Amino acid sequence: MKDFNVDYEILRRKIISIIEEEFQKYGFEPILTPIVEYWETLKGKYGEEAENMLIWRFKLPFSEKEYALKYDNTVPLARFYAKYRPPLPFKRYTIDRVFRYDEPQKGRYREFWQADADIIGSPYPEADAEIIELFDRIFKKLGFKNFYIYINDRELIENLFKFFKVSFKDVYTIIDKLDKIGIEGVKKELSKKFNENLVEKIINIISLKGQEAIDEISKIDKEEIKERINVLNKIIEMSGSKNLLYNPALVRGLEYYTGMVFEIVTEEFQISLAGGGRYDNLIGLFTKSQVPAVGGSLGINRILDIGIENKIFDINKKTIIDVAVIYIKQDLYEEALKIARKLRDLGLRAYIDVSRKKFKNQVEYVVTKNIRYLVIIGEKEIKEKRITVQDRSEKRKYTLNIEEINKITEIIHS
Amino acid sequence: MKDFNVDYEILRRKIISIIEEEFQKYGFEPILTPIVEYWETLKGKYGEEAENMLIWRFKLPFSEKEYALKYDNTVPLARFYAKYRPPLPFKRYTIDRVFRYDEPQKGRYREFWQADADIIGSPYPEADAEIIELFDRIFKKLGFKNFYIYINDRELIENLFKFFKVSFKDVYTIIDKLDKIGIEGVKKELSKKFNENLVEKIINIISLKGQEAIDEISKIDKEEIKERINVLNKIIEMSGSKNLLYNPALVRGLEYYTGMVFEIVTEEFQISLAGGGRYDNLIGLFTKSQVPAVGGSLGINRILDIGIENKIFDINKKTIIDVAVIYIKQDLYEEALKIARKLRDLGLRAYIDVSRKKFKNQVEYVVTKNIRYLVIIGEKEIKEKRITVQDRSEKRKYTLNIEEINKITEIIHS
Repeated sequence: MKDFNVDYEILRRKIISIIEEEFQKYGFEPILTPIVEYWETLKGKYGEEAENMLIWRFKLPFSEKEYALKYDNTVPLARFYAKYRPPLPFKRYTIDRVFRYDEPQKGRYREFWQADADIIGSPYPEADAEIIELFDRIFKKLGFKNFYIYINDRELIENLFKFFKVSFKDVYTIIDKLDKIGIEGVKKELSKKFNENLVEKIINIISLKGQEAIDEISKIDKEEIKERINVLNKIIEMSGSKNLLYNPALVRGLEYYTGMVFEIVTEEFQISLAGGGRYDNLIGLFTKSQVPAVGGSLGINRILDIGIENKIFDINKKTIIDVAVIYIKQDLYEEALKIARKLRDLGLRAYIDVSRKKFKNQVEYVVTKNIRYLVIIGEKEIKEKRITVQDRSEKRKYTLNIEEINKITEIIHS
Repeated sequence: MKDFNVDYEILRRKIISIIEEEFQKYGFEPILTPIVEYWETLKGKYGEEAENMLIWRFKLPFSEKEYALKYDNTVPLARFYAKYRPPLPFKRYTIDRVFRYDEPQKGRYREFWQADADIIGSPYPEADAEIIELFDRIFKKLGFKNFYIYINDRELIENLFKFFKVSFKDVYTIIDKLDKIGIEGVKKELSKKFNENLVEKIINIISLKGQEAIDEISKIDKEEIKERINVLNKIIEMSGSKNLLYNPALVRGLEYYTGMVFEIVTEEFQISLAGGGRYDNLIGLFTKSQVPAVGGSLGINRILDIGIENKIFDINKKTIIDVAVIYIKQDLYEEALKIARKLRDLGLRAYIDVSRKKFKNQVEYVVTKNIRYLVIIGEKEIKEKRITVQDRSEKRKYTLNIEEINKITEIIHS
């Protein structure tokens, strides 16, 4: 769990508003589902490991009902769709906190923000491509320069292993550990279960990326495999993304994916900052009839942490306050407050001390908070019906008559 | 728990952005604390009833640690302050969900949104007055015309009952039921505990409001009482609010208040839409030394429900989408997508079907969603390198050459 202090919270909002603007440009509209869901809603959707170790589920001391905290925004979306049945395609986004009882470590929190965009109601690669294009565009807008969008296809891989006559699940539980144990580790673990020839074939494929990997898989003369490669190529082409890289080792942990899956990683850090895919069977668990869907999710906390670390984002001490009204003596407070009110009426964010600080300490506070403009109210100013505006960063002073106080917006926003 | 569908969610955001703008104008900056707190952080802060029946607290199947969901934004703020010790005064706002295991009923949810602004570090009425002024202003900005800000003072009332030689708690547990059981009910319950003379005095006072009530209490010749009335008058005067009404029956359920308390109700509905007060001892529970604080909280869900019911807010079907790009035949999709991309680059929110709907069904969808502008892409348009923009609401058509596509922003935003 993480507290967001002012600096970090301002940055979080800025990042989210960039993401949100892109979601909206692509025609996604916002909905919001609760933090707390009934356990039965989440049950059986995320796989065993999640259910046994990661999902926040509980009863209250005074209720027998079992609840859970949202584990992602996708399963609640499926429940939402089944309940309200909005017209299809239903394109919605949700930016919200999700909860996973992971061991906290760098970039991993037990409560973290995810920004999701999903399209319900299209089985076609046009929809997959739109999601990829959108996510590609968001990462560019956020200022990331070196990132890959790894892409794979669950059906393709399942067909491939069907051809190899091994179970998809058996192989991919091992491949999923690639980041942790490396290619040698994967080879070792595979060797325990499968014959040498097969292990070599698998290692050969998952060591490749991009066109090379596709070419290698294309050598297999099987209709279903060729078909899925065509779909994948169609998605890659239509998305218009130059950052896409086919990665046969990409699995994605969640059980509900059925087709295309993707993950966004930076060149320096092989840590997933976003991911998603097609899940054509999940909504059917709630609606009893199949409703195709595809979507993706951005990990806001990781994007923030990596973005700050790589100086893509600037988290220098900032304030959102435009101007501080300073009173020289306590008995000028009410006159100063009138000025502060006028500044607020002009739309400015105006601070005035309400803790009876002395003049010197008011100024000290303004320096600590790094507020750029000061309006100083002394007896002379009141008598002469004018205000003095100080620009701390350029060390300039402006004098305005009270009647022309609205001119201060030109000084401050210039 | 409540799902926010698109209409409601757009309204929720609009309301929150109005509130947030005012918070910022008054110099409050955002922080965010987690949904999940340790139970020991919340324990002992909200009173017995809350602890035994209302706070969402639990253990997980795989952890011995006891957790709780945030019950308000105030106790987490106190914890936050104690941990990070930002410079004083610390003026922060937080807009977040809080959780109370109440019986769900109209305007009452188990998970709901609160918008809080608090000032830590000032024991002076200037701070109380700033909070009142801010909340008064927010309700005006939201469009509420008939509302009261009930105000009272815990210390004043405690002194009053000390003078009557009865326990504050005994009397106010009963007065707190005024809304539910009426003045006769309160009288009856008081009579069970206190003598006739005293009951009459109490009923006399709590039947009055405003200056009348203050005058009645002022008759008591006791220094501590006069002093608190002076503070209250100072707050009322400095806040500049014309909606303030002294209400000696106002208690506020939360245990942590120590001085001024307030609640905002509409004239038609005697339901609290916002409230707050001074709590000078709460932060000390975390810091071990007293740190004065005052703040308030808006109940977003109630404001939404009451505002919609009273037609202060408009929740008619709205879309945030500016324009839909319609392709006449499936094989024009990629050309149409190019146009959609151009519109997005211009900053427009552009929808394009990704589910291979036929022309007729695309148009039907646009009508259902109430999207105002259409750009129709047919073979002729592609060949002649132009687009047709249809304004559905004014039944007008515009034709633009592809090179001058940026002119569409003048049509759409005009």
